Amino acid sequence: MDHLQALDGYFKENRDAHIEQLKDFLKIPSISALSEHKKDMQLAAEWLLKSLQDAGIENLSIDKTDGHPVIYGDWLHAEGKPTILVYGHYDVQPVDPIELWESGPFDPEIRDNKLFARGASDDKGQVFMHVKAVEALIKETGSLPVNVKFLIEGEEEVGSPSLEKYIEENKEKLSADLIVISDTGMYGPGKPAVCYGLRGLCGVQIDVKGAKGDLHSGLYGGGVQNPLHALVEVLASFRDKDGTITVEGFYDNVQALSDEERAAYDALGFDEEALKNELEVPELFGEKGYTHLEQTWVRPTLELNGIFGGFSGEGIKTVLPAEAGAKITCRLVPNQDPEEIVEKLKAHIEKHKPVGVTVTVTEFDKGKPYITPFEHPAIQAAGRSYEKVYNVPTAYIRGGGSIPIVAAFDEILDLPVVLMGFGLASENFHAPNEHFHLENFDQGLRVIGDYYYEIAHFTRDELKK
Amino acid sequence: MDHLQALDGYFKENRDAHIEQLKDFLKIPSISALSEHKKDMQLAAEWLLKSLQDAGIENLSIDKTDGHPVIYGDWLHAEGKPTILVYGHYDVQPVDPIELWESGPFDPEIRDNKLFARGASDDKGQVFMHVKAVEALIKETGSLPVNVKFLIEGEEEVGSPSLEKYIEENKEKLSADLIVISDTGMYGPGKPAVCYGLRGLCGVQIDVKGAKGDLHSGLYGGGVQNPLHALVEVLASFRDKDGTITVEGFYDNVQALSDEERAAYDALGFDEEALKNELEVPELFGEKGYTHLEQTWVRPTLELNGIFGGFSGEGIKTVLPAEAGAKITCRLVPNQDPEEIVEKLKAHIEKHKPVGVTVTVTEFDKGKPYITPFEHPAIQAAGRSYEKVYNVPTAYIRGGGSIPIVAAFDEILDLPVVLMGFGLASENFHAPNEHFHLENFDQGLRVIGDYYYEIAHFTRDELKK
Repeated sequence: MDHLQALDGYFKENRDAHIEQLKDFLKIPSISALSEHKKDMQLAAEWLLKSLQDAGIENLSIDKTDGHPVIYGDWLHAEGKPTILVYGHYDVQPVDPIELWESGPFDPEIRDNKLFARGASDDKGQVFMHVKAVEALIKETGSLPVNVKFLIEGEEEVGSPSLEKYIEENKEKLSADLIVISDTGMYGPGKPAVCYGLRGLCGVQIDVKGAKGDLHSGLYGGGVQNPLHALVEVLASFRDKDGTITVEGFYDNVQALSDEERAAYDALGFDEEALKNELEVPELFGEKGYTHLEQTWVRPTLELNGIFGGFSGEGIKTVLPAEAGAKITCRLVPNQDPEEIVEKLKAHIEKHKPVGVTVTVTEFDKGKPYITPFEHPAIQAAGRSYEKVYNVPTAYIRGGGSIPIVAAFDEILDLPVVLMGFGLASENFHAPNEHFHLENFDQGLRVIGDYYYEIAHFTRDELKK
Repeated sequence: MDHLQALDGYFKENRDAHIEQLKDFLKIPSISALSEHKKDMQLAAEWLLKSLQDAGIENLSIDKTDGHPVIYGDWLHAEGKPTILVYGHYDVQPVDPIELWESGPFDPEIRDNKLFARGASDDKGQVFMHVKAVEALIKETGSLPVNVKFLIEGEEEVGSPSLEKYIEENKEKLSADLIVISDTGMYGPGKPAVCYGLRGLCGVQIDVKGAKGDLHSGLYGGGVQNPLHALVEVLASFRDKDGTITVEGFYDNVQALSDEERAAYDALGFDEEALKNELEVPELFGEKGYTHLEQTWVRPTLELNGIFGGFSGEGIKTVLPAEAGAKITCRLVPNQDPEEIVEKLKAHIEKHKPVGVTVTVTEFDKGKPYITPFEHPAIQAAGRSYEKVYNVPTAYIRGGGSIPIVAAFDEILDLPVVLMGFGLASENFHAPNEHFHLENFDQGLRVIGDYYYEIAHFTRDELKK
């Protein structure tokens, strides 16, 4: 029997039971940010452990960290075959403003084939799909075509403060051939996506100091440098009118987009007009010579996130402020190095330093960009699994944002990371009325199951990054 | 007998009495900003009225306004001679922080030949000098060499909200040939100054609006215009690296500095190095080709007074703010017109409007620049009176700031205004331990008295602006 058919049968037969189980998982208010839910965190971890155990996963443990516990488990009987590390999280976001929820955030309810509850999509629902996919394969075939390890944490929604240390300390235990994460979204309804790259981050704060105190613009204006003017001069020097960053060497190590990738993006038929209308801007704007998707996925940015200095109340105050400042962050793409970019920013600021003021630069936290090459077999295999189930071409996408834990996996374990999400942008992650489209629950189970077979076709060497 | 000798005799003879009288005036806490001192305002007005009456001033009245009363009085028996309108104020600033005063703000005390009290210098002391100068002349000679009108208001420290209306409604009664105001400072200790020009003011707020809400810099950064970048681009376009304003036509009507004025300023030997050290800036900065005094007295400015938008808290927030804005004011010099300059600013902003955002411009209140020509006989006469008494050259200066009531006098009465101050920058106007150097009280009485004779030498026609 074809394995997809076998999976189909299992999922159909057990669908009601699976949904009830998922509802039970969703009833536990495992809000990692709120200390009064500490007990619920433990309950959710135990519930998941039991679920993994029932699925046939072995060597299970709830591992203590400085924060909420990490769940580990594995199934390692596919000798010589690749090992997939599945990462996800069992914690959820707070629920405020509670009055905007149509049904209780922890009273899961299905309306219009959507399951409404906090965590339905982000990420309990998607973690649960991996558990059930493994369960189906083990129950139906007695084994898995690859080795699998589960690493499910309880602090993703608070920035994963304990996980990096946990990964460092359990490098051996977590060793694998690729990492699969289902915590992102599809390209659109009915349109599956594999995300194979994320941008990195670095940034600086610029503080400009003028006179020892605020000055009267009548007495001193025109004869003393104004820190706001000085700041604006520096800030304006970062970019030209075409949106190109003018920091020397900024684009030096930027990986060029391959023809294949460009074609893949073009095939998505991204609707820039629709985005313009949605954002209510007179027109879109970005680096000349690139499409909006290219601008946000494969090109680095330098953005001003805040400027401050002087008077911002109502009306007028004729002051030359003593100080002014700005916050700047860059989204970085492969193979830009955050340390190197910060050095270039500093050199640029030094070069454009205006007279009459002192300028101080402070660095922010840095995150490396991440990419698993587009043509990597683990990426292409994920695309094939989606296509078999959804019967449409898979979107190969990148994310413009940064998921710090992905960068940490990349850094510490040095493995290909496959972001295989089933959420939809409309599903209100982090907001009231979070929900999960159950057609993607149903289809996703089959995609995940199929993916294990797809990966089983490769040798471990073939999966090397 | 020479008139200066006569005055000398009178002032010496009555010095103790004058100081005691001034102390009585200073004991009245006539704080215009605080409603609990309304009664004190009336007391101070009555005290001053009595004092003017004793001096020989006639037609005295305490004129009601919407706020605190105005005192009027005159002496008009010098037929065919010019009329001087003396303006001043009997209200004072609040006294907070009270704990920093070494003696009570309303317990006048002399230490080291300085009279400490709120209002000692600003402006009760200086108003009192005019009263006593007139008194001396009338007592010693039986008359005044010119006609004199007194207009002393009680709302200068709260922005003179009622005075413009009062002047409009009493244009005839206040008609004169020149206005003398003693409410400013000398150039320095022992260095008298006549101020003959002030800068005007206009300004705009620029508001930049991007998307309908704040955007995530990961998801949208690089593909949507950032209102902060757009704002910075506009703001940077206002000025070049040499400090020259680049708004088209900005300098069109700027009156060139005459060789005489430039020489007069140069003769002051202004110490730019000392200012640099005092302000604690690495260097001074201003429009190329002009000295610091020229930059702040005779050149117009465009200053950023505040910029706001995005995140200004601690650390990092990767946001593209939906909105950003800036406040800008210009100090204007003769013959710039505030209305015209605002139109030029608007045209400049329109021309430099960045794509992808909408820009709104809001105007602030405007004030015209004021100047009585340097060579005007009323200005030069004031300089001569100072020189006779102080035996040093008078500094002919301008003020970089704007005194709205001076512009109103200029606008409504269209008279030369002579700013003849006796304060010192070190005398803590508006601050704790305000004081007045009594040597300038003693000398100033003689300067004022002499000035009446100086003005008497001119025909009314010769004093026309």
